[in-house]
Amino acid sequence: MKLVCPICGKTYEEPVQRCECGEPVEFETFKGEPYIGKSVWERFWDFWPVEPALELSLGEGDTPLIRSKLGKELGVKLYLKNETANPTWSFKDRGTFLAMSYAVKVGYKAVGTVSTGNMAASVSAYASRFGLKAKILVSESASDEKLKAVSVYGGEVIRVRGDYGRLYFDSMKLGKRLGVYFMNSDNPFRVEGYKGIAFEIAEEISPDYVLIPTSSGGLFRGVAKGFIELHESGLIDRVPTLIAVQAEGCSPICRAFREGKIRIERFETPKTIAKAIATPSPPSGNAVLKLLREFGWKCVSVSDDKILEAQRKLAGEGLFVQPASATGIAALKKLELPEGAKVVSILTGSGLKTLSTTGQGKVRECHLERLENCIKNDS
Amino acid sequence: MKLVCPICGKTYEEPVQRCECGEPVEFETFKGEPYIGKSVWERFWDFWPVEPALELSLGEGDTPLIRSKLGKELGVKLYLKNETANPTWSFKDRGTFLAMSYAVKVGYKAVGTVSTGNMAASVSAYASRFGLKAKILVSESASDEKLKAVSVYGGEVIRVRGDYGRLYFDSMKLGKRLGVYFMNSDNPFRVEGYKGIAFEIAEEISPDYVLIPTSSGGLFRGVAKGFIELHESGLIDRVPTLIAVQAEGCSPICRAFREGKIRIERFETPKTIAKAIATPSPPSGNAVLKLLREFGWKCVSVSDDKILEAQRKLAGEGLFVQPASATGIAALKKLELPEGAKVVSILTGSGLKTLSTTGQGKVRECHLERLENCIKNDS
Repeated sequence: MKLVCPICGKTYEEPVQRCECGEPVEFETFKGEPYIGKSVWERFWDFWPVEPALELSLGEGDTPLIRSKLGKELGVKLYLKNETANPTWSFKDRGTFLAMSYAVKVGYKAVGTVSTGNMAASVSAYASRFGLKAKILVSESASDEKLKAVSVYGGEVIRVRGDYGRLYFDSMKLGKRLGVYFMNSDNPFRVEGYKGIAFEIAEEISPDYVLIPTSSGGLFRGVAKGFIELHESGLIDRVPTLIAVQAEGCSPICRAFREGKIRIERFETPKTIAKAIATPSPPSGNAVLKLLREFGWKCVSVSDDKILEAQRKLAGEGLFVQPASATGIAALKKLELPEGAKVVSILTGSGLKTLSTTGQGKVRECHLERLENCIKNDS
Repeated sequence: MKLVCPICGKTYEEPVQRCECGEPVEFETFKGEPYIGKSVWERFWDFWPVEPALELSLGEGDTPLIRSKLGKELGVKLYLKNETANPTWSFKDRGTFLAMSYAVKVGYKAVGTVSTGNMAASVSAYASRFGLKAKILVSESASDEKLKAVSVYGGEVIRVRGDYGRLYFDSMKLGKRLGVYFMNSDNPFRVEGYKGIAFEIAEEISPDYVLIPTSSGGLFRGVAKGFIELHESGLIDRVPTLIAVQAEGCSPICRAFREGKIRIERFETPKTIAKAIATPSPPSGNAVLKLLREFGWKCVSVSDDKILEAQRKLAGEGLFVQPASATGIAALKKLELPEGAKVVSILTGSGLKTLSTTGQGKVRECHLERLENCIKNDS
């Protein structure tokens, strides 16, 4: 087991979470070949840093890749990777499962995370499944709706007053001392779990572009590493162009990229409806920035109006996602991709999780005696 | 194409929805062999009454079958079929997709359904996906929470005042006249779509018992038909024992079964937390009753207390389901199944759909400065 810091290059023989320089470390590149198997864990067995605890899997991963009509007007071939079909209805389950496989293997009795949304629910659910205690640290502002969907799994939910950014790092330090394995958004095992998204896409198509809603940067790094490993293993001809998508109201990575900076600066007073990706100081921001530069990739930010429009368009195709998950589609028009390009957009989480921000559609009233007229007349 | 009435035996050469005797008709038994393919639609290609419109699939079906620890104390091997991983997070999508494939093939421009919950969302979503108009008829009592998750897909939602049971039949009659294809809960194509649950289970294990939350009876009939067809095709050795599970507060099928009746009587003043299966006059009730008798199967009803307890137990294993979906687990203890039996319980829909009925779990407050103590001390 060997980890390396993508920023300073220092290596580690044991699974630390952070480099001494403060950046997130990652596992060295895996190489291998695919096998026949039911789950992505089995088919890409060579590529995981720890043996996946298959007997405790909840069936995460192996999500549908759907051909979308939304690319038509822009002349691209658009595919949607529907991560809302995961056990807790977001992509987080892939990373949680792998990080939890490690935690239980080395004997942790408790795990934790810092999150108010998808990751909190995911860690709470898998902790219960794995028979571990869970310490779920949420910010003061977490809504009741979200807390319900987290606490239902039985994890211990602790609402913490104080700076949320500091909480991220404090939790990992304290966890180490107290024997609680914190799997925050850029935990190295978690990032490895997201590689499965790249693997599954590559099994079905050879995309030219992949649109990735980007917050802390963990998902982006995982998908990137997945494609890079497939390429280095000789399993795909080229790595697609990855596009990090952020909400304009909180786009620290795109800003730094645009301004030619090599370090992310905190995005003050974030304001966007895409709460799930509103991270002012993304922990993996510098690492994402480095990838974008090295590979000549892109970063695009989109307005809340466009995000909501994209959310409606996706629902109009049968896929109800949370605002953050619609950012990829919102970015499409802005990007002006070449005619005929094959594009995948990753739909990260279910719209049922943000129902309170969804407007009520039109509902007509009708009496049963007048049903014929009500059905005949369109609204 | 041949349909038969399971009650009076009359046959039809065209896809009517109801027999002249008033009962739901069903397709004759299909026989065939399995193929290699990614989706259940492809693998069981011989078994569908209409060609599935694969290019418009949203990836419904092929849901995880998960080994559960909850069977341990009862000495049974328990598996959970997680239908909450479908595109609109309930099993309804399987039936909707197949019924919609038929509707679009024969040229309908509009579809409809009568439902307040999972089926309404499913038909609304797939109508958008298929480019059809949708007329979603809901009852007066439908909650805002539910209507949001339906109207978001763009279907036309009509709230109808008047007898809900009558609405079911009126809608089909009117639909025929107005060119709107109503795919209500026991539409014959819909029922065929549910066979996929049986096919996928049989691909992985040979269950002794299958627990099925039962409301209108469409799901039960579909799963039954699936196993029967596999058996008649020589693909499985025996048909498992199917167990219809209802909520005590609305259990017209179990009551009629217990009392030796051959016809369901309306269950007056239904009262249960499992709203998704609270159907006082189940349209497929008599057909289910006949299946139960013919095969020597079982019907079990469970109390709301036990349903909520089962919902908590499932969440404690990482699976958050709606109350109706927990009835199978609630029934387990009551059933006293033989030691070592292989049992599958079908988890029909996501708990996120009934968040308003879910209690808030315990949430502790903590200041960042005291984080160490907060993490150390268990609640």
